[in-house]
Amino acid sequence: MPPTALLEGYRVVDLSVAAAGPLATAVLADQGADVIKVESPAGDFMRTIGTVRNGVSAVFASLNRSKRSICLDLKRPEGVDLLHRLVAGSDVVVHNLRPGVAERLGAGYDELRSLRPDLVYCAITGWGEQGPSIQRPAYDSVVQAASGWAAHQGGMPPGEPQFVRNAVCDKTTGLTVAQLVTAALLARERTGEGRRIGVSMLHAGLAFLWPDGMQTATFLDGGDDDGPRATQPPVHRTADGWISISVILAAEFRALCATLGLDALADDPVFLDNGARSRHAARLWETVDPVLATWPTEQLSRALDAVGVPNAVVRAPSTVHDDPQVVANDLLVEIRDPAAGRMRVPRVVGDLSPEPFALPRPAPALGEHTDNVLAELGLSMAEIAALREGGTVR
Amino acid sequence: MPPTALLEGYRVVDLSVAAAGPLATAVLADQGADVIKVESPAGDFMRTIGTVRNGVSAVFASLNRSKRSICLDLKRPEGVDLLHRLVAGSDVVVHNLRPGVAERLGAGYDELRSLRPDLVYCAITGWGEQGPSIQRPAYDSVVQAASGWAAHQGGMPPGEPQFVRNAVCDKTTGLTVAQLVTAALLARERTGEGRRIGVSMLHAGLAFLWPDGMQTATFLDGGDDDGPRATQPPVHRTADGWISISVILAAEFRALCATLGLDALADDPVFLDNGARSRHAARLWETVDPVLATWPTEQLSRALDAVGVPNAVVRAPSTVHDDPQVVANDLLVEIRDPAAGRMRVPRVVGDLSPEPFALPRPAPALGEHTDNVLAELGLSMAEIAALREGGTVR
Repeated sequence: MPPTALLEGYRVVDLSVAAAGPLATAVLADQGADVIKVESPAGDFMRTIGTVRNGVSAVFASLNRSKRSICLDLKRPEGVDLLHRLVAGSDVVVHNLRPGVAERLGAGYDELRSLRPDLVYCAITGWGEQGPSIQRPAYDSVVQAASGWAAHQGGMPPGEPQFVRNAVCDKTTGLTVAQLVTAALLARERTGEGRRIGVSMLHAGLAFLWPDGMQTATFLDGGDDDGPRATQPPVHRTADGWISISVILAAEFRALCATLGLDALADDPVFLDNGARSRHAARLWETVDPVLATWPTEQLSRALDAVGVPNAVVRAPSTVHDDPQVVANDLLVEIRDPAAGRMRVPRVVGDLSPEPFALPRPAPALGEHTDNVLAELGLSMAEIAALREGGTVR
Repeated sequence: MPPTALLEGYRVVDLSVAAAGPLATAVLADQGADVIKVESPAGDFMRTIGTVRNGVSAVFASLNRSKRSICLDLKRPEGVDLLHRLVAGSDVVVHNLRPGVAERLGAGYDELRSLRPDLVYCAITGWGEQGPSIQRPAYDSVVQAASGWAAHQGGMPPGEPQFVRNAVCDKTTGLTVAQLVTAALLARERTGEGRRIGVSMLHAGLAFLWPDGMQTATFLDGGDDDGPRATQPPVHRTADGWISISVILAAEFRALCATLGLDALADDPVFLDNGARSRHAARLWETVDPVLATWPTEQLSRALDAVGVPNAVVRAPSTVHDDPQVVANDLLVEIRDPAAGRMRVPRVVGDLSPEPFALPRPAPALGEHTDNVLAELGLSMAEIAALREGGTVR
C-alpha cells in the first residue's frame, strides 16, 4: 500500500484568485489535499500575468500547481447550486472576495455551513472585514506601503520607500492561511467543529515584518539605552562576481580579518562587538571591500568556509539551479506542462520520512476538470452536457 | 467553559535558536500549544540582538512570545535525561542544530522516537541535510544570496545585488515549518503515526520566492514569445509624502488618468495594456509623477479610492499603528513585559469564530519556567534544588 500524504482525503474548494489564496491552497495540494479551483468563465486573471509561454503564465502555474479546475458561472442559480453540492462534500472553502460579496453570491459562511456543519471556511481580504478600507482593492504593493514594508525596505526615514520586488504580503498571507486552515482541520478532528477564519493581507504582512523589521517600534516605555541594532550585512564585489558575508559572532569577525590579512582590524576597539561594527559599518567595509575585490568569488567562499565565516556566492535567478547545494538536495525539479512544456519548479518543501511528498503536478487549464468533478457529484453525462449548453459550466 | 484554542493540549519542545524555529513555534504558541523553549545556560543568542530595552531584545521577544523557558545543560547526562523525560510527554520537537549535532546531544530522531513513538520531529537546517554546504553557517542574508533573493531584489542583471532588509528566508521557513508540523499532527491524529520532517532555509526561501520572483527561470522549452512581465509598481512622491499606486486592470489605469486630468494618456496606444505599460513604465511615470507631486497625500488617496484605483499611503514604521485600517482591526495590541514595560505587538493573525485567539504573552526570561516545568515532570523541590546546585539547570 502506498504511503499516505499528510493531507490526503481532505477536499478544498478554492474560490480565490490572485496570489494569497491560491498559494495557500497550493501548499495544501502539495501535501495531498484534493483542491478544486472554482473559476468564473473569465478565469483567474493571473492566467495572463507575467511571463507566459504558449498561453501558460509561470506565476499562475506555480500558484495553482496540483489542483483541479472547474469553471462555474456563479451568477446563475444553477451555478450556485453546483457550488453548494460541491461544498457539501468538502472540508474547506477558501475565498478572497471582498466583504459582503460571498454572501451575495450564495457563498457566505452561514449559508455554506448549513450545508456542511463542520466546514473550515477562510475569508481572505486585503484590508480586513471592518474599517474604512474594506472596499478598497489590495494589490501586494499597496499593502507593502500600508504595512510598513516599503518604508522599511527603503530605510525611511531618511530613505525613500522601496518595494520588495516579489509579492511578499500576498505570499506571507498564503503561508499563514495554509497553516491556519490546517490547524482548524486539526481542531475539527478532535472536536468535530468547524471554524470561520478571516485573514487580511494587512495583518499577515504586518505580523511577518514585525519581529525584526519593526523592532524599533516595539517598546513604548522608557528604559536604558537601546542596545545594538541588527546588522543588515552588505554585499561585496569580488574579482568576478558578488559575495554575501555575515559576521555576527566575534569569532566570525576575527576569522574574516585573519583570512584577508587584516588582523589589525580585529584588534581595533572601534569594531569590538556586533553593535560597534554595525554603528561603524561604513568605516569597516571601506577597509575590507578593496581586499575582497581582489579575490575570485569561489576561492574566497571556500577560504571563508574553511574558517567558519558565514558567506554565500550571490546567485542570479538564471543560475540558482546550478548551485551545488540546490543540486545536492534536488530542490528544483522538472515537471511537464501539456501546453508550456518542461518547467523547472521547486520540489515540495519538507523532507518527510517515512514518506516523501510527491512531485507537483502542472496547474489545470481553465475548466479542465469540470466534467470530472461534476461526474463525481453524481451528474450524468446528459446533465453535464445540458449545463454546458446553457452556459452554467465551461 | 472557555472556548478551546486550536492547538490547545499539544506540547512542543523547542530546541531552536535564532529566527526560523522560534517563529515556527511562536505561531504554534499563538494558537494555544504549550511551547517549552529549552535553552542552554548561555541562552538563545537572539536575546542580545537588535533593539534592547532593559535587557529585553525586541526581536527575541517577538519570536518567543507566549512560550515557557527551561534552562538545561545538555552537555551533562542529567540534562539529557531531563530532556528525554520532557520529550516523552510531548507531541513535537523542533530544533535547528546542524546535521549530526542532535544525534551527538542525545536528541536525534531515532533516540527521541524510542521515548515517544508518535513524535512529530522537525529538523530545521540552513542548507539541507546533504551536499557540500551542510556544515556551513547560515544567516538570513547568506541564504538570500544563495537562493536568488538578493539578485532578484537588486534587479540583477544588470543591477547589483540587494538584500531584503528583514529576515525573509528565516521567517518564510518559520511559517513553512509551522504549517508542516501542524499538518503532521493532523496526519497523526488520523493514523496514530508521527513523522520526521526536515526543512532547509534554502528550500523554503527558494520556494517562496519562486512563483513570481523566478518566473523568468521557469520555462525550459521554446514556444511563443513571453507575454507581459509582472509590473513592479513604483512609489510616488506627493506634495507632503509618498503614495503607492498599482494599476493592473485597464479600468484602473483609465480611472487614474481621469483623476489626474491625463485622459490623453489613457488613449495612447503605447500604454494599451498592462504589458505595454510595464515595458514603457519610465515614459509613463515621467508624465504622471509631476502631477502626483502636486497633490497632498491623503487627498490624493481619497480621490483614487473614489474611482477604484488601488493605492495606499506609505506608512513609516513609526506611524503604522496610526493607520485607520490598522486601528479599526486592532492589528496592533499592547502587552506588558515585566522588564521592558509596555510593548506594541501584532495581534495573533487570524480572526477566528466562534472563539478569537488570546493576546500574546511576553517572552520568557532565560530559565523562567525551569522549576515549573521540572515540577510538572514530577521532580520534587529537593531534586530541583540539587540539579540547580550541580549546574544542570538554571
